[in-house]
Amino acid sequence: MSDNSFGKLFRVTSWGESHGLAIGCVIDGCPPGLPLNEAMVQEALNRRRPGHGKYVSQRREPDLVQILSGVFEDDRTDGPRTTGTPIAMVIENIDQRSKDYGDIRDRYRPGHADFTYDAKYGFRDYRGGGRASARETAMRVAAGVVAKQILHHLYGENISIQAAMVQMGTDKIDRDHADWGRLYENPFWCPDEQAAARWAEQLETIRKNGSSIGAVVEVVAKGLPAGLGAPVYGKLDAELAGALMSINAVKGVEIGAGFAAAGLSGENNADEIRMGQAGPEFLSNKAGGILGGISSGQDIVARIAVKPTSSILTPRKTITSAGEETEIITKGRHDPCVGIRAVPVAEAMMACVLADQALRHRGQVG
Amino acid sequence: MSDNSFGKLFRVTSWGESHGLAIGCVIDGCPPGLPLNEAMVQEALNRRRPGHGKYVSQRREPDLVQILSGVFEDDRTDGPRTTGTPIAMVIENIDQRSKDYGDIRDRYRPGHADFTYDAKYGFRDYRGGGRASARETAMRVAAGVVAKQILHHLYGENISIQAAMVQMGTDKIDRDHADWGRLYENPFWCPDEQAAARWAEQLETIRKNGSSIGAVVEVVAKGLPAGLGAPVYGKLDAELAGALMSINAVKGVEIGAGFAAAGLSGENNADEIRMGQAGPEFLSNKAGGILGGISSGQDIVARIAVKPTSSILTPRKTITSAGEETEIITKGRHDPCVGIRAVPVAEAMMACVLADQALRHRGQVG
Amino acid sequence: MSDNSFGKLFRVTSWGESHGLAIGCVIDGCPPGLPLNEAMVQEALNRRRPGHGKYVSQRREPDLVQILSGVFEDDRTDGPRTTGTPIAMVIENIDQRSKDYGDIRDRYRPGHADFTYDAKYGFRDYRGGGRASARETAMRVAAGVVAKQILHHLYGENISIQAAMVQMGTDKIDRDHADWGRLYENPFWCPDEQAAARWAEQLETIRKNGSSIGAVVEVVAKGLPAGLGAPVYGKLDAELAGALMSINAVKGVEIGAGFAAAGLSGENNADEIRMGQAGPEFLSNKAGGILGGISSGQDIVARIAVKPTSSILTPRKTITSAGEETEIITKGRHDPCVGIRAVPVAEAMMACVLADQALRHRGQVG
Amino acid sequence: MSDNSFGKLFRVTSWGESHGLAIGCVIDGCPPGLPLNEAMVQEALNRRRPGHGKYVSQRREPDLVQILSGVFEDDRTDGPRTTGTPIAMVIENIDQRSKDYGDIRDRYRPGHADFTYDAKYGFRDYRGGGRASARETAMRVAAGVVAKQILHHLYGENISIQAAMVQMGTDKIDRDHADWGRLYENPFWCPDEQAAARWAEQLETIRKNGSSIGAVVEVVAKGLPAGLGAPVYGKLDAELAGALMSINAVKGVEIGAGFAAAGLSGENNADEIRMGQAGPEFLSNKAGGILGGISSGQDIVARIAVKPTSSILTPRKTITSAGEETEIITKGRHDPCVGIRAVPVAEAMMACVLADQALRHRGQVG
Repeated sequence: MSDNSFGKLFRVTSWGESHGLAIGCVIDGCPPGLPLNEAMVQEALNRRRPGHGKYVSQRREPDLVQILSGVFEDDRTDGPRTTGTPIAMVIENIDQRSKDYGDIRDRYRPGHADFTYDAKYGFRDYRGGGRASARETAMRVAAGVVAKQILHHLYGENISIQAAMVQMGTDKIDRDHADWGRLYENPFWCPDEQAAARWAEQLETIRKNGSSIGAVVEVVAKGLPAGLGAPVYGKLDAELAGALMSINAVKGVEIGAGFAAAGLSGENNADEIRMGQAGPEFLSNKAGGILGGISSGQDIVARIAVKPTSSILTPRKTITSAGEETEIITKGRHDPCVGIRAVPVAEAMMACVLADQALRHRGQVG
Repeated sequence: MSDNSFGKLFRVTSWGESHGLAIGCVIDGCPPGLPLNEAMVQEALNRRRPGHGKYVSQRREPDLVQILSGVFEDDRTDGPRTTGTPIAMVIENIDQRSKDYGDIRDRYRPGHADFTYDAKYGFRDYRGGGRASARETAMRVAAGVVAKQILHHLYGENISIQAAMVQMGTDKIDRDHADWGRLYENPFWCPDEQAAARWAEQLETIRKNGSSIGAVVEVVAKGLPAGLGAPVYGKLDAELAGALMSINAVKGVEIGAGFAAAGLSGENNADEIRMGQAGPEFLSNKAGGILGGISSGQDIVARIAVKPTSSILTPRKTITSAGEETEIITKGRHDPCVGIRAVPVAEAMMACVLADQALRHRGQVG
Repeated sequence: MSDNSFGKLFRVTSWGESHGLAIGCVIDGCPPGLPLNEAMVQEALNRRRPGHGKYVSQRREPDLVQILSGVFEDDRTDGPRTTGTPIAMVIENIDQRSKDYGDIRDRYRPGHADFTYDAKYGFRDYRGGGRASARETAMRVAAGVVAKQILHHLYGENISIQAAMVQMGTDKIDRDHADWGRLYENPFWCPDEQAAARWAEQLETIRKNGSSIGAVVEVVAKGLPAGLGAPVYGKLDAELAGALMSINAVKGVEIGAGFAAAGLSGENNADEIRMGQAGPEFLSNKAGGILGGISSGQDIVARIAVKPTSSILTPRKTITSAGEETEIITKGRHDPCVGIRAVPVAEAMMACVLADQALRHRGQVG
Repeated sequence: MSDNSFGKLFRVTSWGESHGLAIGCVIDGCPPGLPLNEAMVQEALNRRRPGHGKYVSQRREPDLVQILSGVFEDDRTDGPRTTGTPIAMVIENIDQRSKDYGDIRDRYRPGHADFTYDAKYGFRDYRGGGRASARETAMRVAAGVVAKQILHHLYGENISIQAAMVQMGTDKIDRDHADWGRLYENPFWCPDEQAAARWAEQLETIRKNGSSIGAVVEVVAKGLPAGLGAPVYGKLDAELAGALMSINAVKGVEIGAGFAAAGLSGENNADEIRMGQAGPEFLSNKAGGILGGISSGQDIVARIAVKPTSSILTPRKTITSAGEETEIITKGRHDPCVGIRAVPVAEAMMACVLADQALRHRGQVG
């Protein structure tokens, strides 16, 4: 990964600050001939804000995406298709309120990147978090749409990548009651209806108190073939870990059994293999679909820990950029559980990593 | 990360299979003038095998490293020093026993990469796991020695990077009894003497039963300055996550509070800041020393979950490469807790990531 | 170099087709704190069209550049300054004439990339050459402005990078009459007034005939220190060669004596060294300022051969995309000598390569 | 290109100094299943020293290559085959004469990299040129063997890549008398028997005088399909230019008509197209087989200018590392025309660039 790019054959570069003129991305390496239009990307972006404003902070802008290059349509195509050249997408920052940012300009918000950006660069666009803002993740979602088109192109319509919230605070879903077909029916992308109901109640209290709470998000890719990934450093799980950890507020990544694997014996951890109708079948999936860094054909399963946002109404001890001790309250927009926002982003990042590995695989082995 | 390389300015490429003629690495981008000799690397390699053979499988070979390029000594230097050109290191595989590998050639060991390597490449060196063998990690340890020289060169002798086992199975250390100054006094690099004693007893039983157990390893870097890392995709934690997840048998990575952060409120998670004698001081370190992908000057803290080895004596269901159902027992060398082996490797990987970020930082901002 | 990006620490990614909605670039790795505003970039872009429309094809649009990210201004700065985050620049394609492109959609223009893009991608934006259009070079010029700011930041105001046309067709400048201080006084950026006068006359005839002519452009960087570059594959001259050859219509690159060095003896080629007032001085510069891939402190001198444009009024034999033999005349905008356009682009590319090498040097050795 | 690596999917990293313990390379990204053994590589290496010692300096060592990883043979294969994992090759430096290098340690040889390496690194292995020695090119030739296996695998046995010397000093071959099938019959890889005879005579005089002479080498790839390459920065010709310019002593690169294109009119430069038996046919090849950075299916033709070696017996003015003026004569091994050595290296570099582009093409478009 480079500072603002990731991927090797399918390469995403993002740019833009929270309160600059616009944010955008450039996607290089998409194969030619794939259907892609703004409506497809817009739909994915809209899902980032699933009509339940109380839990997700709302900028008063529609986040309208424009595709500026890399697609083309003429009378021989049924709509715009990719050309193989770089796809540039941009979203204007309409909602750049010219408010007074002196508060966060000079006082480092605990748990935010204010202090470290200053330590690194000495000079930064502090408005709304600048480059460190989660607003950047809109472009990841946009890139994820392109990545999914590639995966469908290569492996058919039956593959799927879905992310869901599986834990809020310490309250986990009940896997026996999980229905991944109904993720969109609650504001948490939660597969367990009852958990969603509990979380809704709890989060309302947290929101009113000006507090926040962490979460765990799970991403599952189904239908991918065995053989994707690379040995040693370019392992599929290593690249997933890097990509997922790069999402704002993520503090942990695990694959398959993850940290629970530390507590297992070899007998309980290694997934046995039998022959099924359609080929090898594993009797369990502790590995999360990845062995030796290469996909096994099972579901690819990753989970991320998302910390609670540090933008809370309780006054917090901090210092100014001049080194004076002070306190700060983070006013303004407020996400009581940023884990919700991380759901579509995690899904997109897995799609991007898989698309890149798929193209690399085809290049080396295809 | 590329398939067999990682890092941008400090770039490590490794090569070699478990039972080929040799393994090795090439390290590009090391600054000139740093002291480096084979004894320094050998010492780190020897620590991978800390004289307690019952817990770590022993190849009957000394793992003697040779430095073939990139260092130079003449009458004006006090020993070999790096020249800034690529440093090639090699370890011969003396212990290539010409035994019969037919067993693992045709039968996929559950939990190993046999099946997935075949799925990817169609053809592989199956002897001893080939390229997927943990033997490759010797070169990571070797690279870590160079990385530490760079960090000392840039930030002085007082910085330190240490890894330790903090959990075996479900049994965690007691942080109140931890002494990181005594890691080398037990075969687990465990900072808690009592935990080490318990683990020793437990592992003896596991070993006798031909079973295995997972572990959690923690890596801590002290004394690094604030400002290392990069925004968005090149985040320090993202690169650490990728590097640590690329270690054999690792199934999870977390930074600071990690997965526990999911259960916290914003008040309990964000580390407050005060002015100390020597500059900003944080009142806690839930962030693990990284905010917005950039180091804060606090201790950088990462943990990895290591699965139990799948090489166990209990017969396991599997299939042959021809698709027939069968069973397999993994004989031969046997690590009851591969987490132990992961300790120096995790330490080395953190050193490499930090060295690369440090050079990149100096390049862009220096 | 990647498909649409180049550079390692100073990395430029461009996007956009000739007749799409816009073209743009993202520049990653620029150090923070450097003055940068749209006027500076616009001035360089305007120089691409030096008021002599007869020789350079004119799109009827002002090429107004916008900087969308990566710079910031507040009451503490004297104008916008870079923040160290990605700098996105965009130019709208206002002049997208909805004319009929059927002619070049189905008929491959000889000497153009129509045939090869179709061979590669099967599907392309054919309007005005699409991604293969020289319009993309506007973004190189924009990136060059940032690169020069970096070089000035590192090495002071006295360094300079200048490109000039030194040959049109077979007519070369007279070096004894060259004055590099007066490049802007003629439409060719030609240092030899008399040559410029001859070329003007000759080119008028060529233009009237609907023909075209090739050229040689020379780029010279002065004031750079010794020590920039890298051994073996990352040589300064190798990276210059790649960057300059990537400019549209360039068919050759040479450094210092270049192809003439093939005809020299060792005695006449190797530049002898003496001590001057300010350090080592070379008695000649056959090397073009680069020895072993590393700058020597002398002027860095490169030359490129630019072919005549293939857009001419003479009917040319070609085939259709369906494989039928036909003829084609390229109507519309017309550059009788595209070498003129290559001058500022070559200058920009050298600036970008030097800025990248300078940052890498500072990272590894600084 | 990185400092010591090049290529994206087919990536070559070389290491080693002229008089260190060994030189070597690591080749990452070679597809699995290709035949590869040491004899194949050795044969190519032996061709670097075509039994005519008078013109090519002879180290008294056989340059025996060892393949240490990435190939595997068992009873199911007909000889060693690649496994898809990194291929490490090494050649020991047996001929490390412990002679006194004080002469070149402290005195910068004009035309060599002694001064610039010191300027960059401050410290270097000066023996025999160290990392700047042309000895490194042995590894390029070795990598070229692997690259050719990939190209044959993808495009069949009929493709060919051949390099030849086409000019020595100012004396060019007569294209009407060129027979590329007889390159190996003279010590120059010269396709024109009469030119070879003239050069032999001339070079004998040069050698006796302790002088040296430059040359032009041409590389031609036949049988490659249209469509290889990439737009804008990853152009096939741009990557060829970078790769060829990275060869020691090369000062210029041109594609197709090259610098002569500067003197042409559009009518004479653009290659017209007709339909032939097997598809599109071009009526000329001024483009050198590349249009818009993408191969056209025609012969790919590149030429490089190789300077005369600076190791000559005439005393030359120079300075010491301490800044004192002095003179130097380069004794020892002596190549009167290093262009001869560049022939197989140029061929190998073109093969590597094509193999990388071919795999990238298959990844993105395949």
